Amino acid sequence: MAAIIEPRTLKGFRDFLPPQEIERRSLIEKIERSFRSFGFVPIDTPALEYAGILLGKGGGETDKQIYRFKDNGDRDVALRFDLTVPFARFVAQYKQELVLPFKRYHIAKVWRGENTQRGRYREFTQCDIDIVGSDSAAADFEILLVIRNTFRTLGLDAGIRLNHRGLFNRFLTNIKADGRSVEILRIVDKLTKVGEDETRKALEEITGEGAGKIVEYINRRGAYGETLEALTALAGGACPESERLATLHSYMKDTGTEDSFTLDPSITRGLDYYTGIVYETFLNEDPSIGSVCSGGRYDNLAGLYARERISGVGTSIGLDRLIAALESLGKLEKRSGYTVLAITWGGEREAGRRQALAERFRAEGIPCETLLESADEAPAAGKALTRQFIQAEKKGIPWVLIPPEEGSGEFVLRDTRERRSLEALSFQEVIRTIAPRGPSRAACPA
Amino acid sequence: MAAIIEPRTLKGFRDFLPPQEIERRSLIEKIERSFRSFGFVPIDTPALEYAGILLGKGGGETDKQIYRFKDNGDRDVALRFDLTVPFARFVAQYKQELVLPFKRYHIAKVWRGENTQRGRYREFTQCDIDIVGSDSAAADFEILLVIRNTFRTLGLDAGIRLNHRGLFNRFLTNIKADGRSVEILRIVDKLTKVGEDETRKALEEITGEGAGKIVEYINRRGAYGETLEALTALAGGACPESERLATLHSYMKDTGTEDSFTLDPSITRGLDYYTGIVYETFLNEDPSIGSVCSGGRYDNLAGLYARERISGVGTSIGLDRLIAALESLGKLEKRSGYTVLAITWGGEREAGRRQALAERFRAEGIPCETLLESADEAPAAGKALTRQFIQAEKKGIPWVLIPPEEGSGEFVLRDTRERRSLEALSFQEVIRTIAPRGPSRAACPA
Repeated sequence: MAAIIEPRTLKGFRDFLPPQEIERRSLIEKIERSFRSFGFVPIDTPALEYAGILLGKGGGETDKQIYRFKDNGDRDVALRFDLTVPFARFVAQYKQELVLPFKRYHIAKVWRGENTQRGRYREFTQCDIDIVGSDSAAADFEILLVIRNTFRTLGLDAGIRLNHRGLFNRFLTNIKADGRSVEILRIVDKLTKVGEDETRKALEEITGEGAGKIVEYINRRGAYGETLEALTALAGGACPESERLATLHSYMKDTGTEDSFTLDPSITRGLDYYTGIVYETFLNEDPSIGSVCSGGRYDNLAGLYARERISGVGTSIGLDRLIAALESLGKLEKRSGYTVLAITWGGEREAGRRQALAERFRAEGIPCETLLESADEAPAAGKALTRQFIQAEKKGIPWVLIPPEEGSGEFVLRDTRERRSLEALSFQEVIRTIAPRGPSRAACPA
Repeated sequence: MAAIIEPRTLKGFRDFLPPQEIERRSLIEKIERSFRSFGFVPIDTPALEYAGILLGKGGGETDKQIYRFKDNGDRDVALRFDLTVPFARFVAQYKQELVLPFKRYHIAKVWRGENTQRGRYREFTQCDIDIVGSDSAAADFEILLVIRNTFRTLGLDAGIRLNHRGLFNRFLTNIKADGRSVEILRIVDKLTKVGEDETRKALEEITGEGAGKIVEYINRRGAYGETLEALTALAGGACPESERLATLHSYMKDTGTEDSFTLDPSITRGLDYYTGIVYETFLNEDPSIGSVCSGGRYDNLAGLYARERISGVGTSIGLDRLIAALESLGKLEKRSGYTVLAITWGGEREAGRRQALAERFRAEGIPCETLLESADEAPAAGKALTRQFIQAEKKGIPWVLIPPEEGSGEFVLRDTRERRSLEALSFQEVIRTIAPRGPSRAACPA
């Protein structure tokens, strides 16, 4: 007999049992619905690409983490590590077919050889939206509005903090520190990790007196309008970047959404390729979780693949971080299945007729399953029924139906949550009991 | 300046542009809804597994096609080539947590180094359902019913042809050819490819006179009941296998679904691990496409991972073959987007107010987008509007709204398919025009 192989997954890779996968699908469906309601359309790209397409795009750290190998034809291939680089290739490859401005969403798995000791996964899901082919403030604002709408749809109270990389660069030029902007950004990016004193010290080593002004800039908080005024002054006066932020503010007033947004000059988004607005999203119920949705405007998405510059703006929701946040806030659905009504097992001879009965409920839009047992005789009342009620409870099925004795036409309906039975119901009464607001709601699984 | 890298995908790997991805998502959503209505729950497993978990499970051919490599930690890993082997591991790994019988579905990508010259893909989507932990005919029938229901949901006229591997084996024993059953199965499996004469010759080389009886067996067609009688006689009389087929027939009669099923003794399903019923699904409008959904009952799913035997029954829909079939039948939806209503661009100052208007329609359940333009001045009537109508047409958006002049409150609604405009509409009249049966239907993207 062959040796037993231990069933296990690679570290950083997960299986999802039904309650977890149901939760993931439910969240993805809500996120998708929000994206689609704004007119974003889905695309998909391969998990595996030519390594040359992916390498060198995400920065040194990413290249080390890429899952790269030679395939059976000795080609140098790699698994995608995000959805942005594949999108850049996609836009360059199909530029003749796309109608610009192009608004796409892409929800899919990506793979990175992360350090799993820090609780990170090596396979995880990203939910991206991007608008390419438009430089306008309207495109920037649309992304911000989609983020706001999506978190409201998820029942979360989220605050979006935005900033403008270009305005910060203009400020650095104004204090003659623009030559060191890369290092300054790297230091400022660590502000929340190392604290203000460490940050100031690190800046002083680079810019001397400028450090004080930089700390003043990134520390500005308050009402959007006042903060913008202060930053504009520090940057040397009105400029296209400050005008962009002002226009976005006017859009927030036009749509009555001001309460969702904060102008936060400490948001830098690291050394990413952003050139315009950048933003992060925090859950007001627990901001310490960190950003659940980040992004920004970039100048040239497809530059390495095509001669034309394609600018755009976008964002990415990390599904796993979102789920961790929902879990810590106690907001996960904890659903075990989709079935609303289970019909008891009545022995192998009876199974066909019980399926026919189940079909009647499905036809009314009610997810309905016939319970299965390995015994092939009709169960006597009592123990066997109890066993089936327990099975239904474990599977999270709220209602169990005991079909009528021949000729009686009356159903017994078991409520597994209250643990009580309703007797002598007609078919219609069963439906009204389990789906009081109409069957279509019962059938909407998400 | 860095060299331009040619944007391209690996052969056998595809991008999906919005119309294709919308179609795929729509089909998957319908298939999922069908699976869920019967009480099947989703799981997910990693794309990457320990190579030892996957190797040797699919037969010699599969092992050659597996994408296998050493990861950054020098582990021997491979991409899953189907969803069944991961499920076997899953069942063994979580047997304490699962409520048996367990009914799961899994819709996901798999990877195989197929020969692309035969029109095959190396990355493709499978839609699997399985019931494990039940030996009963009721479980077999449930899978058959789900297949039937799923294809009806997809608007396809499908016929399911079933057979019983165990009955065929009993027949071979009865004609004393069971010692050569593996070779016989291999020959019979090629029947549709090489034809009856070649098959008979190949069989004669193995079984001599038995060849004639085998050809008689596999050629039996006709009404289910008569065919079953003939096969039972050839197999030596009533047996558990013939009883199983008879029970399934009684279920078909109980549910009024007989017209969907045929007993077809030529269905063998190759050298797969099936031990009980096996089935294939053909589209009546074009059976030459081949089976769009195949499967069967197996004796021991988790045998290599656990000491307990876990039996089950399941099926797999190949999404790409299904789409190819729909395409050849002219039944693809050809949808470019989800937006029902687009609002014209009125310049950058106006964009916030137009988003606020779009929000009013979204709140009514109508997917609505504000068109984007790179020009930042209000368009004059005429050319600029026409350009926007064309943009909407290309994006497949049926309605375009021109918001009212200040104070008038009257909308102009453009029908992009009829290419005509309706003037002086109120907000409510716009809604009634674009969503006559109520907004929720307009918002249901699938």
